[in-house]
Amino acid sequence: MGKLIAFTSISLDGYFTDAHGDMGWAHRSDPEWDGFVAGNARHDGMLLFGRVTYEQMASFWPTPAARQMAPDVAKGMTRASKVVFSRSLKKAAWSNTRLVGDAMLDTVRALKRDTAQDLVVLGSGSIVSQLAQENLVDEYQTVLVPIVLGSGRTLFEGLDHRQPLQLTQCQAFSNGNVVMWHKRSPT
Amino acid sequence: MGKLIAFTSISLDGYFTDAHGDMGWAHRSDPEWDGFVAGNARHDGMLLFGRVTYEQMASFWPTPAARQMAPDVAKGMTRASKVVFSRSLKKAAWSNTRLVGDAMLDTVRALKRDTAQDLVVLGSGSIVSQLAQENLVDEYQTVLVPIVLGSGRTLFEGLDHRQPLQLTQCQAFSNGNVVMWHKRSPT
Repeated sequence: MGKLIAFTSISLDGYFTDAHGDMGWAHRSDPEWDGFVAGNARHDGMLLFGRVTYEQMASFWPTPAARQMAPDVAKGMTRASKVVFSRSLKKAAWSNTRLVGDAMLDTVRALKRDTAQDLVVLGSGSIVSQLAQENLVDEYQTVLVPIVLGSGRTLFEGLDHRQPLQLTQCQAFSNGNVVMWHKRSPT
Repeated sequence: MGKLIAFTSISLDGYFTDAHGDMGWAHRSDPEWDGFVAGNARHDGMLLFGRVTYEQMASFWPTPAARQMAPDVAKGMTRASKVVFSRSLKKAAWSNTRLVGDAMLDTVRALKRDTAQDLVVLGSGSIVSQLAQENLVDEYQTVLVPIVLGSGRTLFEGLDHRQPLQLTQCQAFSNGNVVMWHKRSPT
C-alpha cells in the first residue's frame, strides 16, 4: 500500500501562499538546499497536483532554462508518474501525466491501495486540506520558511477536527529553512 | 538596550490558540521539555503579557500546586519583573507586576530603551501582532507543537507587511516539539 506524503512550504504564520496567491517567497536557493531538493526529485514517487501547482510546474520544468538551472530535478520531475486533479483542465500535456477530472478522493484511495510507490502531493493547498479532512495524508514534510506573511491561506483550511501528529525528523538548513517530518498519529 | 523576544507555541497551521481560545493542546510535559522550560524561567528577563495570558498565569503560578509541579518555573515566574497591558484590569496583584492601562507601544519603546534586561512576551497573541506591526520584536522563539488545529488565531493577525526573518537556532525535543529561534532581518 502506498504512503501519501504532503510536501509543502509554509511561512512562520502557517501560510503556503500569500493573500495574492504568491509563493515566490518560498524559493531560497543555495547549494545545500538545492542538493536536498534534487535528492527528493530522485526519489521514486508518484506526484499529485491540483491544477494551479500543475500549471506552474508544467510550464517550468520541461523548459531548457529549468534543465540548465536544476538538471536533476528537471529530469526527476519529467520522468515521474504524475496525476493532476482538475475539473476545468481539458488535457495535461506534460509527459507521464494522468488527468483526473472527478472523484479525487476515490482516485486517491484506489492509488493508495493499488500502488507500492509513495504518493507525493506537492504544494497543492486545496488538495491537501481535502485529503487531510478524510485522514488520507500519512505524512507531512513541511518546509518552514523564515518569513512572516501576515495573511494568506493555510494547508488545512476548512479542516473540522484536530489532527495530532508525531514528529519523526527535523533538519535545519543553511538558508534558514527548517524541514519537519510529521506522521499522522493513529486515530 | 533591551531585546524584545516573543515566546509562543503554535500549531503546524500557525495558530497560537484554537477557534475557541483553547491553548491546552500546547502542554506536552516530559522531563526533557520541562527542563527546557525551567531553564528559560531561570533566565533574568522582564515578562510582558496581555490580560488573558496574565490572568491565566497569575491564577496558576502562585499556587501551591504550581510550586509542587514545577518549583523552578514557579519561583522564576514570581520573582521576575512583570508588566501586564490591559485597559480593563483594575489591579494586578501578582508580585512584581506593573499594570499599564494605555500607550502600550510607547511603554514598550521606553522599556527597550531604558532596560538592559531582555523583555519576553509570553504567548500573548494580540500583543505580539501589534508589536510586530511596529517592528518592535527583535526575536521570535517559537515552539512548533505537532498538531493541526484547522482553525484559530495567528500571532500576526492584521500585520500589513511581510517580515523576513533569520533562523539562528533550531532544536527538536523528544515530546515532538520543535523550537525555532528567528531574528528579525535588518530592514
